[in-house]
Amino acid sequence: MDSIIDGVSHFRSVVFPEQRSLYRKLAHHGQQPKALVISCADSRVVPEIITQSGPGEMFVCRNAGNIVPPFSQVNGGVSSAIEYAVVGLGVNDIVVCGHSDCGAMKALLKPEALKDMPNVAAWLRHAESARHVLREAYSLLPEAEAARVLAMENVVAQLNHLRSHPSVAAKLAAGQLNLHGWFFDLENGHILALDGETGKFLPVGDKNQTLQVAVRGMRRVVADPCCAQHAHHVTAAE
Amino acid sequence: MDSIIDGVSHFRSVVFPEQRSLYRKLAHHGQQPKALVISCADSRVVPEIITQSGPGEMFVCRNAGNIVPPFSQVNGGVSSAIEYAVVGLGVNDIVVCGHSDCGAMKALLKPEALKDMPNVAAWLRHAESARHVLREAYSLLPEAEAARVLAMENVVAQLNHLRSHPSVAAKLAAGQLNLHGWFFDLENGHILALDGETGKFLPVGDKNQTLQVAVRGMRRVVADPCCAQHAHHVTAAE
Amino acid sequence: MDSIIDGVSHFRSVVFPEQRSLYRKLAHHGQQPKALVISCADSRVVPEIITQSGPGEMFVCRNAGNIVPPFSQVNGGVSSAIEYAVVGLGVNDIVVCGHSDCGAMKALLKPEALKDMPNVAAWLRHAESARHVLREAYSLLPEAEAARVLAMENVVAQLNHLRSHPSVAAKLAAGQLNLHGWFFDLENGHILALDGETGKFLPVGDKNQTLQVAVRGMRRVVADPCCAQHAHHVTAAE
Amino acid sequence: MDSIIDGVSHFRSVVFPEQRSLYRKLAHHGQQPKALVISCADSRVVPEIITQSGPGEMFVCRNAGNIVPPFSQVNGGVSSAIEYAVVGLGVNDIVVCGHSDCGAMKALLKPEALKDMPNVAAWLRHAESARHVLREAYSLLPEAEAARVLAMENVVAQLNHLRSHPSVAAKLAAGQLNLHGWFFDLENGHILALDGETGKFLPVGDKNQTLQVAVRGMRRVVADPCCAQHAHHVTAAE
Amino acid sequence: MDSIIDGVSHFRSVVFPEQRSLYRKLAHHGQQPKALVISCADSRVVPEIITQSGPGEMFVCRNAGNIVPPFSQVNGGVSSAIEYAVVGLGVNDIVVCGHSDCGAMKALLKPEALKDMPNVAAWLRHAESARHVLREAYSLLPEAEAARVLAMENVVAQLNHLRSHPSVAAKLAAGQLNLHGWFFDLENGHILALDGETGKFLPVGDKNQTLQVAVRGMRRVVADPCCAQHAHHVTAAE
Amino acid sequence: MDSIIDGVSHFRSVVFPEQRSLYRKLAHHGQQPKALVISCADSRVVPEIITQSGPGEMFVCRNAGNIVPPFSQVNGGVSSAIEYAVVGLGVNDIVVCGHSDCGAMKALLKPEALKDMPNVAAWLRHAESARHVLREAYSLLPEAEAARVLAMENVVAQLNHLRSHPSVAAKLAAGQLNLHGWFFDLENGHILALDGETGKFLPVGDKNQTLQVAVRGMRRVVADPCCAQHAHHVTAAE
Ligand SMILES: [Zn+2]
Ligand SMILES: [Zn+2]
Ligand SMILES: [Zn+2]
Ligand SMILES: [Zn+2]
Ligand SMILES: [Zn+2]
Ligand SMILES: [Zn+2]
Repeated sequence: MDSIIDGVSHFRSVVFPEQRSLYRKLAHHGQQPKALVISCADSRVVPEIITQSGPGEMFVCRNAGNIVPPFSQVNGGVSSAIEYAVVGLGVNDIVVCGHSDCGAMKALLKPEALKDMPNVAAWLRHAESARHVLREAYSLLPEAEAARVLAMENVVAQLNHLRSHPSVAAKLAAGQLNLHGWFFDLENGHILALDGETGKFLPVGDKNQTLQVAVRGMRRVVADPCCAQHAHHVTAAE
Repeated sequence: MDSIIDGVSHFRSVVFPEQRSLYRKLAHHGQQPKALVISCADSRVVPEIITQSGPGEMFVCRNAGNIVPPFSQVNGGVSSAIEYAVVGLGVNDIVVCGHSDCGAMKALLKPEALKDMPNVAAWLRHAESARHVLREAYSLLPEAEAARVLAMENVVAQLNHLRSHPSVAAKLAAGQLNLHGWFFDLENGHILALDGETGKFLPVGDKNQTLQVAVRGMRRVVADPCCAQHAHHVTAAE
Repeated sequence: MDSIIDGVSHFRSVVFPEQRSLYRKLAHHGQQPKALVISCADSRVVPEIITQSGPGEMFVCRNAGNIVPPFSQVNGGVSSAIEYAVVGLGVNDIVVCGHSDCGAMKALLKPEALKDMPNVAAWLRHAESARHVLREAYSLLPEAEAARVLAMENVVAQLNHLRSHPSVAAKLAAGQLNLHGWFFDLENGHILALDGETGKFLPVGDKNQTLQVAVRGMRRVVADPCCAQHAHHVTAAE
Repeated sequence: MDSIIDGVSHFRSVVFPEQRSLYRKLAHHGQQPKALVISCADSRVVPEIITQSGPGEMFVCRNAGNIVPPFSQVNGGVSSAIEYAVVGLGVNDIVVCGHSDCGAMKALLKPEALKDMPNVAAWLRHAESARHVLREAYSLLPEAEAARVLAMENVVAQLNHLRSHPSVAAKLAAGQLNLHGWFFDLENGHILALDGETGKFLPVGDKNQTLQVAVRGMRRVVADPCCAQHAHHVTAAE
Repeated sequence: MDSIIDGVSHFRSVVFPEQRSLYRKLAHHGQQPKALVISCADSRVVPEIITQSGPGEMFVCRNAGNIVPPFSQVNGGVSSAIEYAVVGLGVNDIVVCGHSDCGAMKALLKPEALKDMPNVAAWLRHAESARHVLREAYSLLPEAEAARVLAMENVVAQLNHLRSHPSVAAKLAAGQLNLHGWFFDLENGHILALDGETGKFLPVGDKNQTLQVAVRGMRRVVADPCCAQHAHHVTAAE
Repeated sequence: MDSIIDGVSHFRSVVFPEQRSLYRKLAHHGQQPKALVISCADSRVVPEIITQSGPGEMFVCRNAGNIVPPFSQVNGGVSSAIEYAVVGLGVNDIVVCGHSDCGAMKALLKPEALKDMPNVAAWLRHAESARHVLREAYSLLPEAEAARVLAMENVVAQLNHLRSHPSVAAKLAAGQLNLHGWFFDLENGHILALDGETGKFLPVGDKNQTLQVAVRGMRRVVADPCCAQHAHHVTAAE
């Protein structure tokens, strides 16, 4: 803990004074983060570092494996963070961020590694979809690639879970929210983002390029016009 | 119960003898249903009647509101039916079928009607997404249309939940499963099906028309090619 | 799905028009089903076929193994269907219907068959009572008979669970509800019904025979008269 | 705590020495209790006092309201006590013992009394059946009698729950277990027992009287003989 | 059951009449127990015997292993007993009492003994902390001592769980509640109590000795004075 | 999202290249974080900023309210993070970090603010202990101080929950883990730490001062010596 304490001391005596007015403003006016970021608890994947964000910019939920449990009758911390960010803070973007060399993904591939970690094993049941997809749809994948592909499919699965949350579903249908699926590559510092239209992960941050969006909110009315038109047609036809 | 007993008597003495060989075959070779149908327990919405199907053709799960709870760590009857149908029986199609004048949907619009039915109220939390979408995206909807639209959005929501089940996600990614979203209109006998591409419900069973599919299974590999290509590119670039 | 679509087309163009007035009446006046039927999702066991019932006659809940989870603090679809049928619709009869060659019962006898179906395995814990009864009370049973007997004992177990639901317990004690336990034999088309008094399954639908009832609702007052009488006696005795 | 400590001191210096050999035997040979007693945590209802039992005689589970949650997929302390007593210790009798002036029953009648006790409120959902029976089947009951009748109906409800436990169901079907439903009247010291045949609570312990049993275990085979006979009959009849 | 019935008869005809006025008072004025005792369901460990207490003195919750599940969103019988005793009855002392030769503790050491008792196995997960402590902190313990030490560490663990209950935490912080950890030794009749200050179990009931307390309630204000003082200091320092 | 994308671009082109060797090492040798930090998802409270830590230094779990649910039979993301950090990564320090102006704490004080956030409301039940302590032990607190004091008492409560986790309890008893309770004051940049001995929050990072520890791991053997000594004494005394 010594170096951490030294860091606290440095923060207090050097860093904070330089940002005193920013913190004062944040303390008095509350937070207005631009996005909710759900990422892994892994010490090497710090959302504020890879996005170069400062205090007040991102509401951050971190857990082992950047998991988003589906909405259910008994929910926990991630569901609460989503609800608080969407309903309470009104964020317009949610990022689910996975990464390479993820311990959770590697454990998912070797269940025996979790013998002494029953909670982690239970928690990773929320990534079962990704594991099943890996098995059914990537049959020829070299073993060395498995953890990396699993981490990407896990982002896809968690985005699906996100859509089961009422607050998210409603804002998507109202065209007020976009969902993003990211993958941080520790080796080369790249962040890939899922492109919902092509279904591929592509690098973020290239010049002159708009951001790929995994699920784009779009004002939609599945029922309305169809019903009206159809009801008319039916009446006429009878 | 008298008319039901009469029906049983009639089935046994008249109907069964005519289909004895079919039932024998089904008893000896087991069932091989073509589809899993998840529909409402409503007595007016009999899947075998509206599809004119006989014994052995459809694996049927029915509950109040044609609900599909999202996959979770503690699952129940619907999740088991899905798993059994997809993994155990290998069905290639799943239909979620809602309907007009649905008591569950009407109760969702009037929560006070559920005061004496706490279980139903809890169960319908799985339709919260549809209710939230109704509120956020259909603000100008006439009240008389609300239950109908809610029933359709509920089908959309339950299809989303279906995708959170590992067995479903895996077969979709392997291109071996299609998901269908139906709406049965009691008034005119029409069945509408959600068209995933246009996001509209359109009548099923018109001549010379292929079936609308809500979610089409498609062999996909979000991670693979991109990674390979990208990894190469990165290495070269460094 | 092609034959199913053809069936839908046939229903809409031929069947529905013949029953248009029935469906209209059902749509405008709501459903008033005579009974709640809880049966297996098995494609070969269609409640409306074996009872020769039409639309509007039976509220139907179907799941793998015709399971009724006991009433508990967190309930799901079956509990909701029971509550809705008893409290909301006021049905006077509930039928739990098992059947021969049931995949769920056979899986219960061979747990290893459920290795890839963890949800089904968890769901069938609700049939553990039947499995334990089979083990303790039928020790000399030939193996070929096991699945059949288990399916019958499972009906007994699920009837027991039914009684743990407050709405059911109350209507039974008020003499306003009867519970029925059925077994459909795919081979010969017979439906057997549990006779609560003799504890045997007997064929339904024989001429000149009243229906066996598994649990007959009976107005009862376990506490009242005894207390009054007893209190009196006690006071006198002191 | 002072009087409790004095009691401990007295137990150790006076009571224990007199029973040293009994405790030694119990310590070395383990417990072999005759019965499992499930009673209220109420300080006035001590099972060992009202049955005048000593150490080693009764396995005792006590909780607010002498509740037995139905068997379910997630169970707690009462379910464990039942399983341990029936499977591990092989008891042949289970007593569920309610009592007069029970705080839990009175709270069930006045839910607002539980405003600051959310856990108790949730726990008492397991007594909902009794409350519903009271409402539906005792409509003319004077208010002063309500708590007493509710306590008796609660014993009936908990006996029903007991039967949903696999270990109990199996031993009942094997004729190796009896269930007893008791009610202790604080005012006059009487213990009433439910008589399963007449459905009444009658005083225990009158001379020359056999004990009333609520549910008598009976070797039974609902399926076997019937099937054999029936199968034969059917084959012959075809 | 015969000897139990004889006991009931004896209680009613001999014991109760002698204590009629006590029971009358308890019936009319309600219970005012001095303490909540949470002990094992073991037939040899009767709280009222080892403390020589009579009716009305102790509110008693008993279950296999004297377990106290931590406070959580879904709680059961033990949590309800705690809440009822602390909030409803206002007890000022809670005793968690373990004992030697405890079947639950021995089962925890030999998980295979629980193969046929899945509920007990699940229940004992609440004693996992004690098992882990045994493994990590008592590495040189002779096997013969394991069950005894585990039972003591289990008392420590359950005291920790007690503190997670809001009603307990609040009364501790208000200095209105003391927690006691006891261990009853069947062999010699001694009761040991955990001394929170030295972290040792010491005999209860020695003459001229005050009672050891495991967790002593103490009016405390972690935040207040510090904040005030600190805020001042900070303002001054800036 | 634009500024976030710009940040990603900057990270990739400027920041990462400077730390390429650090990331390479972390990617190839895995993470070895010094501590697990459990903090609020609040955008203004970035653990890496207030401790001036870089990638690889802290395993971070963030959720609304820096909550640690008690160990239970069904656990989620926080429990998994704890288990992974303690068992899988072997961290020796865990920090629970609250903060001033916390939205979760303010919502806990005004439950009506959570009307549209049922998940958050459920999640904050894990902070009920703190709310109860506030009510019982700080009766004269000015309202303006409530949220601040609640946030500190919440840290105390969550530290208590931490101790219910088996992996934490075991390492504490083995003297291999320390628990820290922090409070970050947004207004002045100070971090206060709970001092377990005095029960006060004191500033961290003052020169020439050792760090306050909330719960210091200490090799302890509650049972052992006492038993040995006591057993001896008892034998001798008999
Ligand atoms: Zn990771
Ligand atoms: Zn419906
Ligand atoms: Zn079946
Ligand atoms: Zn009571
Ligand atoms: Zn014990
Ligand atoms: Zn906060």
